Formats: sequence, C-alpha cells, structure tokens
Amino acid sequence: MSQQPLYLGIDGGGSKCLALIVNSEGHPLGQGVAGPANPTHGLEQSVNAMLSATEAALDNAGLAPERIHDLIGGAGLAGLNLSDKYSGLLREWQHPFKQLHFTTDLHIACLGAHDGADGAVIIAGTGSCGMVQVGDLKKEFGGHGFLVGDQGSGAWLGINAVRQALLVLDGLLPPSRLGEAVLEQCGARSASELAESMAQMPPAAYGRLAPVVLELAHQNDPIATDLVYQGVDYLERLARRLLAFGPQRLSMIGGLSQALLPFFSQDIKQHIQTPLHPPQFGAIFYAKQQGHTAS
Amino acid sequence: MSQQPLYLGIDGGGSKCLALIVNSEGHPLGQGVAGPANPTHGLEQSVNAMLSATEAALDNAGLAPERIHDLIGGAGLAGLNLSDKYSGLLREWQHPFKQLHFTTDLHIACLGAHDGADGAVIIAGTGSCGMVQVGDLKKEFGGHGFLVGDQGSGAWLGINAVRQALLVLDGLLPPSRLGEAVLEQCGARSASELAESMAQMPPAAYGRLAPVVLELAHQNDPIATDLVYQGVDYLERLARRLLAFGPQRLSMIGGLSQALLPFFSQDIKQHIQTPLHPPQFGAIFYAKQQGHTAS
Repeated sequence: MSQQPLYLGIDGGGSKCLALIVNSEGHPLGQGVAGPANPTHGLEQSVNAMLSATEAALDNAGLAPERIHDLIGGAGLAGLNLSDKYSGLLREWQHPFKQLHFTTDLHIACLGAHDGADGAVIIAGTGSCGMVQVGDLKKEFGGHGFLVGDQGSGAWLGINAVRQALLVLDGLLPPSRLGEAVLEQCGARSASELAESMAQMPPAAYGRLAPVVLELAHQNDPIATDLVYQGVDYLERLARRLLAFGPQRLSMIGGLSQALLPFFSQDIKQHIQTPLHPPQFGAIFYAKQQGHTAS
Repeated sequence: MSQQPLYLGIDGGGSKCLALIVNSEGHPLGQGVAGPANPTHGLEQSVNAMLSATEAALDNAGLAPERIHDLIGGAGLAGLNLSDKYSGLLREWQHPFKQLHFTTDLHIACLGAHDGADGAVIIAGTGSCGMVQVGDLKKEFGGHGFLVGDQGSGAWLGINAVRQALLVLDGLLPPSRLGEAVLEQCGARSASELAESMAQMPPAAYGRLAPVVLELAHQNDPIATDLVYQGVDYLERLARRLLAFGPQRLSMIGGLSQALLPFFSQDIKQHIQTPLHPPQFGAIFYAKQQGHTAS
C-alpha cells in the first residue's frame, strides 16, 4: 500500500533528546526521550540519543521499528556549529531515516516558537543563546559554552553557585545558606572536596544546581538573588540585541525560562511572547522545508 | 672523600618548575628551570619537570649529574592537596634523590617569605591562594582551580578576559579594545572561533592573556579595569582573612603580585611586606626541617 509520509522532529539538547513523530497532516502520533545529544560531547552519544529517542517515539506511536526508514526528519542540535567538524561528521552519518536534515537547536526553537515564520528566540536551558530571523537576515548570539559564556543558563547558574559557595566556605563572603546547600547537593564535606568533586564535570551536572540557586533566591538569600539577577541581566541584554533587528515576535524557551521570567524587568517582559510550538515541531517545519527542497 | 650535604629546593608551579641547589651553609650553587609541575595536570609531567629542573641546576652548579643522589630536597607543588591521590602517588615515586619531601607551593612560599618563621602569604600567579602559619595553627584558603576559584590569578584574569571579549564581540557590552586584543592574542577571527579555540585550554594558556588585561587596565579600558579590580577585591578579602589570625608578616608573591599591587587599597597595601626569600629557598628550609626529623 502507498503510505503517507511520516515526519520526525528531533530536539537534541545538552541534557536530553526529544523525538516527535507526526503524520502528513501534522497530527502528533508519538514521542520519545533519550539522553544528551549535543555532538560536541561525543558524536556517538549524540547519534545514539537520536536513535533511542526515535525508537521510543515509534513505539509510543504504535509503529513498527522498521518504519524508521520512512521518517523524514529534522534535527536541531545544541552545540552544533554548522561550519564545524561535528556538522560534517553528522552529514556523513549513514542514518536509517528516509531523510535527516540537521540544523541548530536555536533554529528549530525559533521555527517552532513562531509557527515556522520569522521571529526571535532566547534559549535558557542547560546553556543559553539567542537568534533572530527576519527575512534573509539570520543572526545567532551567545552560547560559547558555560566556561566562557552561556550566562543565565542552568550550567552557568550552577558553576557560579559553586564559585560563591567556595567563597562562603572559605569565609571570604558573608555566611549564606548557599554554602551548605551546594555542599549537600554535590555530596561534598568541605570546600576542597567540593572543588575536586566538581572539577571536569559536564554542563548538565552544574545545571542540576540551578534549582538550588532559584529556591534560595525565592527565599531572598542575597548571594543567590544576585546570581539570578546577573544571569537575567545578560538575558535582557540578549533580548535587546535581538529586538533591535525588529522581529515580529520574541519568545524565550528552555528549562529555565519559566523560572527566570519573574525576575525580568517589565520593560523586557512585555516583549516576550509564549512560543506557539515547542522546538521539536520546529524541527518538523525544518524537515518539511528541506524535504521539499530535496525532493 | 666525605662530602658536605647538598640541599635542593623545588618550586613546582602551574607554569614552570624552579630548582635551586645550595651547600650546607645555604650558599646558592646553581639553579634550573623546567615546565609546569602541577601534579593534577599529569603526574608524569610533574615528575619530569622536577627532574629536568634539577638536572639543569646541577649543570648550572658545575656538579656531575650523579650528584643527584646526594641531594636532600624539598618540593612545594601547586595543586597539591596533601590528603589526595597525587600526594600518595608522589610519595611512592622511586626518586633518585637522597631525600625528597613534598609540601604545597603555599607552604614553601610562606617559609621562604618569612625566613622559615611564622607568617602569612598570598600567591597571585597562574593560580591564587593564601595561607597563614602562626604557632601550631596552619590554614589555607582559596585555590580551587581557575574554573570555580583562583580569583585574581593570571588564569582567572585570562578566562574572564575571554568571557568579556565574547560579550563585546556579540555586541552585548559596549565596544572595548579588549574584544580585538583577546582575538588577536588567541589567533581567532570571530567570537565562535575564540570560544572554540579556548575550550579545554589549561590554566597557563589563559594566564598568557593576563598581561593583555593589565595593559588595557593601565590604558583605562573600563572592562579591563573592572576585571583587575574584581580580582584585587578577592585578594584583599583573602588578605583580611589571613591578617585576622594575627601573623607577624604578610607577603604577596607570584608572577602577578607586582603588577596587581598598585591596584590595592592603601589600607591593605600597608600590611604587605616584601618576601625575604623566594619559594625555592622555602623548599630548602622545609627540606632541612624534614631532613633533621628523618635523620
């Protein structure tokens, strides 16, 4: 029998990978989740996450595993720089899909948030970044990783929580509950144990400290509050930079966006609109756009 | 013939390893330099640096290479935590010296700065930290590595220079010469190239950016000046913490100390005294103390 095309949208983030399968009318059939798919932390892990999430989505849709060969897919990956080696290696991947088109997580977030139309988007999840697409103009800002960038992200909040906790524990900042809270969350007993246990940790491990910081900020802990406002200051700068290009809509998405929004100034908050669809739908818009071009 | 003992002092820092040989009267005979000896960046590199620096010192002293077996040595290593695995592994090292006693770089800096007597010391080099020794009390603060600590150090200035340069290049901070200066020093052409080229770099690589920041601060660049004062604020907090224990003397040493001192407040600066000897002499004081205990 002649089967209708099936579309696959993959949102491959630094903490988890989401896959969504829709039919030709765009009706969701099933979804699946797997681990981190950021290719800069290992191409094999990224590829495995995309496959696992897709298999789970097929299963969730009640579709046979071999239908993977019928999927026309779009994948937006965190940490993907379209000009770098990972992008080249992914394009060479002998994937099992009918088609698979790669782009950045920012791009699919933007397409999803604005129903496939122009607009701007800020991601505040494990990492942070922003992009704007207005006509032919497409610009990305931020990102750069949590060691030298990603301000306002979960990993950034987490690494700064460790920094400030160490200052508190060394008696170089006034006492704050942040010191003990970070020790406890990281399972360490002293400043030096904390520093050792968190050295070489990936962004997601630091990101797990973000809820601790946010909770203490809600309890008015001065250090935690200051950290949250420093992160929000960066995201507001990013918002102003994107708005200067005159996008019709601006959305903020990612695991931290809802928690951070109350800390934004009214001035910026009034410009931020609810995303129309999540990024995995944006990946499907992208797959359809590219699929038409390819066929 | 019966030979007088020879003493060896090793100052094993994160950027280079210095070795000094003195005779039994404490008269310097020769010195040598090798690469980084911080054991947390590789035990083999650390051991090789100590051996190379010692061989160079023997050569410089006009002593035969086999005299290495006569040396009673003290070594103060950056990044050494006396309770961790590196310390255990170093103690198991089948070294060629007559004796070799390990301690921290802070400890030898403190012993050297105060002629083997009590006192406090701040190191501001590739990393930063402080210690105070008053009678039986011995406390260390700071360190913790440049990702979550080491504020005011060269590596800390460098990683913050990259952070701020990325904000300038993304148009999220006002224009500053720091953006172009950091790009140039790192041989990168754009924000994303800069972030990629500096990811995974060791502290010493970031430390090489410190002179760029200091030069721009002297030229009153607002971002560079702010960074330097943030670092100095931390070092002043550290100084106050150490002074609270009532040491007779406080010294600041390390590659950045002379460059940072002019930015200190008069209040703290008046307490900072010139070190009496460099850390490699402190390592020799330590070797003598331990050698007497051992013999």
